[in-house]
Amino acid sequence: MRQSQLFTKTRKEGPKDEVSKNAELLIRAGFIQKEMAGVYDYLPLGLKVLKKIENIIRQEMSIVGGQEILMTTLQDPEIWQKSGRWDDKIVDNWFKTKLNSGAELGVANTHEEPITNMLLHFIKSYKDLPVYVYQFQTKFRNELRAKSGLMRGREFLMKDLYSFNKTEEDFRKFYESVAEAYMRIFEKVGLGDITFRTLAAGGSFSVGLTDEFQTISNAGEDVIYIDRAKKVAINKEVYNDENISKLGLNKSALEEVKSIEVGNIFPLGTKYSEVLSLTIKDDDGKSKPVVMGSYGIGLGRLMGTVVEVLSDESGIIWPKEIAPFAVHLVRLGVNEKTVSFAEELYSDLRKRGIDVLYDDRDLRPGEKFADSDLIGIPVRFVISDKTVAENKIEVKYRTSKDSELMSADEALKIL
Amino acid sequence: MRQSQLFTKTRKEGPKDEVSKNAELLIRAGFIQKEMAGVYDYLPLGLKVLKKIENIIRQEMSIVGGQEILMTTLQDPEIWQKSGRWDDKIVDNWFKTKLNSGAELGVANTHEEPITNMLLHFIKSYKDLPVYVYQFQTKFRNELRAKSGLMRGREFLMKDLYSFNKTEEDFRKFYESVAEAYMRIFEKVGLGDITFRTLAAGGSFSVGLTDEFQTISNAGEDVIYIDRAKKVAINKEVYNDENISKLGLNKSALEEVKSIEVGNIFPLGTKYSEVLSLTIKDDDGKSKPVVMGSYGIGLGRLMGTVVEVLSDESGIIWPKEIAPFAVHLVRLGVNEKTVSFAEELYSDLRKRGIDVLYDDRDLRPGEKFADSDLIGIPVRFVISDKTVAENKIEVKYRTSKDSELMSADEALKIL
Repeated sequence: MRQSQLFTKTRKEGPKDEVSKNAELLIRAGFIQKEMAGVYDYLPLGLKVLKKIENIIRQEMSIVGGQEILMTTLQDPEIWQKSGRWDDKIVDNWFKTKLNSGAELGVANTHEEPITNMLLHFIKSYKDLPVYVYQFQTKFRNELRAKSGLMRGREFLMKDLYSFNKTEEDFRKFYESVAEAYMRIFEKVGLGDITFRTLAAGGSFSVGLTDEFQTISNAGEDVIYIDRAKKVAINKEVYNDENISKLGLNKSALEEVKSIEVGNIFPLGTKYSEVLSLTIKDDDGKSKPVVMGSYGIGLGRLMGTVVEVLSDESGIIWPKEIAPFAVHLVRLGVNEKTVSFAEELYSDLRKRGIDVLYDDRDLRPGEKFADSDLIGIPVRFVISDKTVAENKIEVKYRTSKDSELMSADEALKIL
Repeated sequence: MRQSQLFTKTRKEGPKDEVSKNAELLIRAGFIQKEMAGVYDYLPLGLKVLKKIENIIRQEMSIVGGQEILMTTLQDPEIWQKSGRWDDKIVDNWFKTKLNSGAELGVANTHEEPITNMLLHFIKSYKDLPVYVYQFQTKFRNELRAKSGLMRGREFLMKDLYSFNKTEEDFRKFYESVAEAYMRIFEKVGLGDITFRTLAAGGSFSVGLTDEFQTISNAGEDVIYIDRAKKVAINKEVYNDENISKLGLNKSALEEVKSIEVGNIFPLGTKYSEVLSLTIKDDDGKSKPVVMGSYGIGLGRLMGTVVEVLSDESGIIWPKEIAPFAVHLVRLGVNEKTVSFAEELYSDLRKRGIDVLYDDRDLRPGEKFADSDLIGIPVRFVISDKTVAENKIEVKYRTSKDSELMSADEALKIL
C-alpha cells in the first residue's frame, strides 16, 4: 500500500490522558484511536495486526479440534440467574441494557452460560462428546479504572474456547493440548521466550487451581515466581511450599518478576453444566453432567503486550509474524531515476505477493525515518539517489542500528 | 470436514415462535441458533457462509479504494448530542448502557458520528481527501418487533462504508462506483437477476433522494415498481410522475412487486461534517465542511434473503460462491469397499483444496438425503455399494432432480 493513500498519519504526541506506553505508541503510530478510557478503534494498520493475531490463534484452535462459531452480545438474564452470575454484587463489571419493552438484557461479559445453554440442543448422549467450540467475540467489562491501554479494555476482542467432555480424564487431556497450543501461539507472536505457563488461583468461576500464561513485563499487574530454565512459574497468589513442590521446583531457583496475563485456561468442572442441565446419558444409562473447561486469549491485550515489551525509544518493533507489513519501502528524494527505481521495486514486490508499505510521500528523510521507526515494520528498504547510483537498496532491520547495501535480488531473499 | 464431527445436527422442526422461513430453515439445518427474537448465534455452517459473504464484500470495498477499520460498540453520547441523534424521541431504537460511574453510553446503532469525529485527527486539508473507510461491525437496534429472522435483527453484522470528499462532484463519482460494486456483490451472492437499484426516499438522516438495492421477494417489507428490461426500480414511497420521468422510465412498463432491501447508499451532504466541525482548508484558503456519504449492507440480512428466495420444500439451496462447502460427499452403506472408496475420495478432495463436507455417519439413506437437501450444498457426490461396483460416483446438483453416474475424474471436473 502507498503511504500517501493511508488516511492515518503519525503524531508527535499521544492523547494527554493516556498513561500506558502501549496505547501511546499505537495511537502516535496510527494503529488505534481512543474513543474513551478502555475503548479503542482499530485503524487500518492496527486491524492488520489484529487479523494476523486472529489467524495465528485460529490455526491453533483448529489443530486442537475447535469448531468456530459466533455467539451474540445481547444476552438473556434468565440463564445467568440460574448460575447466580446475573447479580451485580456477584459479577461487578456487567454492562446491562434494556429492550424497548423494558426487559433487561446483558451485554456480553463472557459466554459460559449462553454456550452451555445453546449446546442443550446438540448434546444429548455421550456419543455427542467431545465438543470443542471457540469464537472471536467482543467482550464488554465495566471496569472502574481502565488506564492500561489495550491491556485492560472495557470493550475488547477475545478468543474464547469452551470444551465439553464426558470425563475428567478426557478433559485433562484436552486441557494439556490447549496449553501446548497456547505456548505455540505466544511463540509465533514473538513472546515465546518471556512467556511462562503459570500456576494460579482460578477465581470464583473456576474449579481448583488453574494455569495462566504470563509474559514478563514491568507494565504487568501480576507478580509471579519463575524458573527460567524449566520455563514454569507460580503466581504470587498461590506461591507456597505445597505448590512449589507440586511443580517440582526449587524455591532458591525462583525469581520474582512482574508480568502480564496474556492467556488463561480454566477447569470448570460441572459447575455450569449442572445448573443449566447439560447432562448426558452414560453407557450405563445414568444421567450425568458434562465436564467443562474455558480458555481465553484477549487479542488486543496480546497486541498491547507485544508493544510494551518489544518497543524502543523510537517506536514499535513488530515481530515478523504479526507485523502490519513485511517490508517498509522508503523513497528519499524526487529525482526521476530514483522515483522510477522505487516505483518498479514497489510493483515487483506486490507482484510477488509481498505485503509492502511504500512511503512515496515527498517529505524530508528525517521525518520519513522517524515515521518508519515509530510504525515498526521489521525490515526497511531505502531507495535514494545514492543507492540508485550504485543500483542498490539500503536494507535495515528495525532491531539493528546498521544498514547494508544490497542488490534487489539479495534484498528480496531476506524477506 | 467429517459430518460425524460437526457438533450441530439437523432438526425436523424449528422453534415454535419462529415465523420467518429464513430463520426456520437455517435453524433446522444447524446454521444459526436463536438467543432471543432478532438475536442469533452463528454456528459453524452459518459462520462459514457469513465469512464468504464478508470476503466478497471486502474484495469489492478494496476495489473502490476503501480502507478497513473497526470502530467500537460503546459510544460517547457527546458526539450524538451534537448531531441531535442521542434523543430517544429522534432515534427510537437505541440500546443504551451505563458506566459504573453512572455515565450513559450508546451501544452502536450506526457510526456516522463516531467516524466523523475520529477523522478530525486525520483530515485537515483538501490534500487529505478523499478518504473512504469501511468496517464489518455489529449494530444494535432496539426494534419493537423482530419477527423476520435474519432479515431484521436487534443485533447484526453490517458492512458500513463512509466516504469523505472535497466536492459534491467527487462524491457523486464515488457514489456511482459504489453502486456498481454493490451490483457485483449481489451478483456474486446469487441475487443478481432479481436485485434492482431502486430510487428511494433517504429518510431523516440522508440528504434528498437515495438509492436502495431491492431483491424481489414476497417475504419483503417494501413495495417497489420495477422495469425488468432496464433493471431499474422506484420505491413506492417516491413513486410519482416526476421521478418516473427522471429515471427515463415508462409507467406502463412498470410492475409492482414486494421486495427486501439488501443494501443502501446515502448522500449525507455536509450534515454531519458541519455539526462535528470536520472542515478542510480549500485551495482558496477558505474553510468548508467535507462532503459525506454512507453505504450499508447487512450480512445476515443478505444471507437470510438468499435463503428466502432460493430455497425449496426440501431445504436451502446455496449459490456456489457462498455455500458452506463446495461439495457434499455422502457415503451410503458400511461395506468395507464402499467405505474405503469414500475415504479415499474424501482425502483426495481435501488434498486438492476442495472444501468438502463428508457424511461419514452410519444412518439410513433417507435420513442422509433429507439432511443433505436441507443443508443445501450445491453439488452432491453419493458413494454406495452400487456406484462402487461400477467404479463411479453418483453426482447430483441441489437444483436438479436427476443424478448422473460419473468417474472420479469427471466428477472432479465439475467442481
